[in-house]
Amino acid sequence: MHFARPLEKLIDELQKLPTIGPKTAQRLALYILKTPEEEVRKLAEAIIDAKSRVFPCSRCGYLTDIDPCPICRDEKRDKSILCVAEEAGDIIAIERTGFKGQYFVLNKDFNLMGHDDLGSLNIKPLEERLKTGEVKEVILALNPDIDGEILARFLAGVVEKYGVKVTRLAHGIPVGGYIEFADEITLRRAIEGRREI
Amino acid sequence: MHFARPLEKLIDELQKLPTIGPKTAQRLALYILKTPEEEVRKLAEAIIDAKSRVFPCSRCGYLTDIDPCPICRDEKRDKSILCVAEEAGDIIAIERTGFKGQYFVLNKDFNLMGHDDLGSLNIKPLEERLKTGEVKEVILALNPDIDGEILARFLAGVVEKYGVKVTRLAHGIPVGGYIEFADEITLRRAIEGRREI
Repeated sequence: MHFARPLEKLIDELQKLPTIGPKTAQRLALYILKTPEEEVRKLAEAIIDAKSRVFPCSRCGYLTDIDPCPICRDEKRDKSILCVAEEAGDIIAIERTGFKGQYFVLNKDFNLMGHDDLGSLNIKPLEERLKTGEVKEVILALNPDIDGEILARFLAGVVEKYGVKVTRLAHGIPVGGYIEFADEITLRRAIEGRREI
Repeated sequence: MHFARPLEKLIDELQKLPTIGPKTAQRLALYILKTPEEEVRKLAEAIIDAKSRVFPCSRCGYLTDIDPCPICRDEKRDKSILCVAEEAGDIIAIERTGFKGQYFVLNKDFNLMGHDDLGSLNIKPLEERLKTGEVKEVILALNPDIDGEILARFLAGVVEKYGVKVTRLAHGIPVGGYIEFADEITLRRAIEGRREI
């Protein structure tokens, strides 16, 4: 198949994005070519702009364009509850629940199978916040994989040094999920975590 | 949910692309923020570059960065068979079949339900090619919707004026498709178009 070089390059670049396969990349590229130049320029500028102006908040690590971020500045939020997560995407999901505590984002694809070790995590800002004594509970919102488990144990150790309560998100049957289709680990966790009604 | 303004804008712009919903847009935006600046710049440049350097070939309408396009320049291709399609994406699909004729792309979202009429189609370059007498057959590769049907009839009328044979792509059961699951129109077309074995 012959594509004009600039078109081929665009398809290649789009394919590097997650969830974008060759067919979708081609479709997006053809769409871009049909879009008015002004709109295309807006897209390209939004990419460059976001990349150059958005950075992790120096206090919590969440993505922001002002430092500290609006969540850290918000006086109405509960400073006594600190939710620790791996990625900004996790915070976005947690914010949707209406959670009103504060955050600490590790901003690290912790990869135990690779060459990472726990020493490469920058947890100093977390310890600074624990030292102030204003945090009464740390919720570990970590993913249920091996790395998440190891991270949880490591972080629990750090937090406990400051005499602060550590909790984790509950595992169980997703709301609307059927018991019949729950995998055995989820179901076991749901039984372990059963609550009085 | 609070997003930093440049991040929000990027998510908005990405959402304008086809097949990209709010969740995918957010995922792509977060991925872009994690990508090294050089890579991000490559993506933005590829977008601007493709938009500014790729245009429809003056002879066939296919997307190209040199005029006429490499398909039109290719002396090994059969100039006697001209395939007419609506969009560049259709040509890409037809090229994958190994078709070795030439093309004419209408480059128009022909929308009969909207305010388009057939007069807005630029078929002059098509007629110029038919006049030369080198085209012996025009294959109409048009989609099987109402607009495609009307276009086919209109174009067949134009082509026949020059005494050139007009054909359409065969309808029938897709290769690998089961008769049981074929819709009645497809099956009827498959019976009508039956071939001796």
